[in-house]
Amino acid sequence: MPKGAGLTYASAGVDLHEKDSFTESLVSVLRRTYSPRVIDNPGGFAGLFRLDYNERLFKRNYKDPVLVACTDGVGTKVKLASEVGDYSTVGIDLVAMSINDMIVQGAEPLFFLDYIAVSKVDKGMLDQIVRGVAEGCRQSGCALLGGETAEMPDVYAPGEFDLAGFAVGVVELKRAINPVRVERKDVVLGVASSGIHSNGYSLVRKVVKHAGLDLQKVYPELVPGEPAARARGARSPRAGTNGTAKGASRGRGSAATGAKPSVTGTQAEAPTLGKVLLTPTRIYASSIVKLLRAYRVKMVISGMANITGSGMAGNLERALNPKVDAVIDTKAWPVPPVFKFLQEQGGIEDAEMRRVFNMGVGYCVIVKPTFAESVAEQLRKMGETVWTIGEIVKGTGKVIER
Amino acid sequence: MPKGAGLTYASAGVDLHEKDSFTESLVSVLRRTYSPRVIDNPGGFAGLFRLDYNERLFKRNYKDPVLVACTDGVGTKVKLASEVGDYSTVGIDLVAMSINDMIVQGAEPLFFLDYIAVSKVDKGMLDQIVRGVAEGCRQSGCALLGGETAEMPDVYAPGEFDLAGFAVGVVELKRAINPVRVERKDVVLGVASSGIHSNGYSLVRKVVKHAGLDLQKVYPELVPGEPAARARGARSPRAGTNGTAKGASRGRGSAATGAKPSVTGTQAEAPTLGKVLLTPTRIYASSIVKLLRAYRVKMVISGMANITGSGMAGNLERALNPKVDAVIDTKAWPVPPVFKFLQEQGGIEDAEMRRVFNMGVGYCVIVKPTFAESVAEQLRKMGETVWTIGEIVKGTGKVIER
Repeated sequence: MPKGAGLTYASAGVDLHEKDSFTESLVSVLRRTYSPRVIDNPGGFAGLFRLDYNERLFKRNYKDPVLVACTDGVGTKVKLASEVGDYSTVGIDLVAMSINDMIVQGAEPLFFLDYIAVSKVDKGMLDQIVRGVAEGCRQSGCALLGGETAEMPDVYAPGEFDLAGFAVGVVELKRAINPVRVERKDVVLGVASSGIHSNGYSLVRKVVKHAGLDLQKVYPELVPGEPAARARGARSPRAGTNGTAKGASRGRGSAATGAKPSVTGTQAEAPTLGKVLLTPTRIYASSIVKLLRAYRVKMVISGMANITGSGMAGNLERALNPKVDAVIDTKAWPVPPVFKFLQEQGGIEDAEMRRVFNMGVGYCVIVKPTFAESVAEQLRKMGETVWTIGEIVKGTGKVIER
Repeated sequence: MPKGAGLTYASAGVDLHEKDSFTESLVSVLRRTYSPRVIDNPGGFAGLFRLDYNERLFKRNYKDPVLVACTDGVGTKVKLASEVGDYSTVGIDLVAMSINDMIVQGAEPLFFLDYIAVSKVDKGMLDQIVRGVAEGCRQSGCALLGGETAEMPDVYAPGEFDLAGFAVGVVELKRAINPVRVERKDVVLGVASSGIHSNGYSLVRKVVKHAGLDLQKVYPELVPGEPAARARGARSPRAGTNGTAKGASRGRGSAATGAKPSVTGTQAEAPTLGKVLLTPTRIYASSIVKLLRAYRVKMVISGMANITGSGMAGNLERALNPKVDAVIDTKAWPVPPVFKFLQEQGGIEDAEMRRVFNMGVGYCVIVKPTFAESVAEQLRKMGETVWTIGEIVKGTGKVIER
């Protein structure tokens, strides 16, 4: 190639200046998630976080700290966001996926980092994504310590993108949740999901395509009404709607405050199918961390599970030891309309639905029987919808759904 | 859609069983990177790592620990790996990108997590990638604590994939590297890169395409010979070749041990262009951590920089404070053949080359003048190739390349 036809990085599709200017605009969004434990590091590519913090008011010290680390993406929910053209909530999903896995260990979330890969830097789209991530971090009580935006013109088709998230938390060694603690007669509490959360979207999108559904349309079958109140075994299911109970602490100006779960939301305006399917994943960190603190000495929580891919059976199983089974009454909670709608439109078998989706229960807490009622009541006071859904029996480490 | 035409998750392109079986085959690869500080958590989705560890022999305790966290990908080097059909080294690159950023803060790497997104689970390809990641973790002295493999048939075209990495380390608060320590007369040492590392691959691939280069071909211009010996100002440049000095500690059976830097490698068989361009990023963790330990009390290292995107100027700048400049003699080290070759083939301007590539210096150490020679000597003993490339002068926080 002759000189003069000189190639540049910009001609190869990568604009370092555009990327830098976007990075600078993010600083204030990140800063709003900072606690005094975050150390300023303006020039660095690394985030700094003080584990022990001795200043008055914020004193935090660990005797034998165990770091808990998780990574996850949001699967093809990113593809649905592109199709709907709404990037404001997938960032919340991204934080939720890692944080909900982490708190299952009894850990307190410390910080989060995101990786965003796009075909071309589009400030509007990236701004929506990162504001969602920051909102997720606020809901989780953790700092958005850093992130990477990768511009990869050839790996991703125009408009396509992917997200990966990384979360680190800490738990005192002796207080870490351990399957050996789960015993016969323990009670399984189910905590309501906000919808499909972030698993099974390849199937969701296949149903939308095969049944010729319109993401912009309002489907009356999706209007939830008051399904919880009709449920067998449901106890005080609306002791505070999830969306409003915590609104005040969520900071201002976020594009992503529409995190009201479809299960308990009231219908000011009926949402489109796209909006329903993009409902952000419920983050259980705030409730679970408070709950574990309240029972710090008694340690009445013997196990927990985040219900994601592979459903209730696949996930709750991981909280059990080989001497017990969990018997789950699948009629103990109301299946939200979105699951029934997808099942009907896609002609999906019951078993396949339960294997892929959370079916309305996004998180499980296994608790000593004498404390089951008071733990459920505490969770309700924190804004969760809770049902008693099962019991631990003698067994071989299996989940039995009835 | 009628019942009976029932959709399943597998029909939507996601095979949970195939993914689970791949995950199980990885357990032993992960385990080889474990230290006694990793806590077993077979059922969990979270990795557990003990920060303080009191057992004899492995005792590690921190008075005021600061966690240092980094995330990065390898850019479009993934695309080059697909084109060459060799996935054995991009995992090393992935670890290198985050770890080299982290050690700049003075931190000791603790653990790493990876996110791998593919269009379709291909065990052979994933196996190569994860073995590379494990090899990178061994070179960094950190545990591969976990990871996520995402199967996203619609986001990635067949054969395409992306990688994101996440690293956490720890540094004692009072020993963290801080730009205020950099003073007039400090010496800048340059540590050799192994090649292009993992930045600028959109431009690299554009050159390959525009100049009609063949990735499978051996180009004689790429045979390095002994360029270091010809360099002005080079001191003892080959006091141990990078590739062989540490080979013994790198574990057996890895597909990714071909991490010999092209700068100093001898030519048993001439590598193809594809092989040269896929040379894995040099990981400086082992050398830098040892160096910092050796000077723990004296703290003679005042700053460090990992030379990535935006080149020497863009990265070294971040190590400076507003009262000093770094004056760099760009002729103090030999530019490896791969950079000259790409520049010629693409007709790329000198300034653009220096803005996009590391040009042969992958890492900088700023050191107190009286210790410059002994620090350089220590680094050489650890297998690094080191040149004195510049000096700190009174200034305004800029890097001046001469």
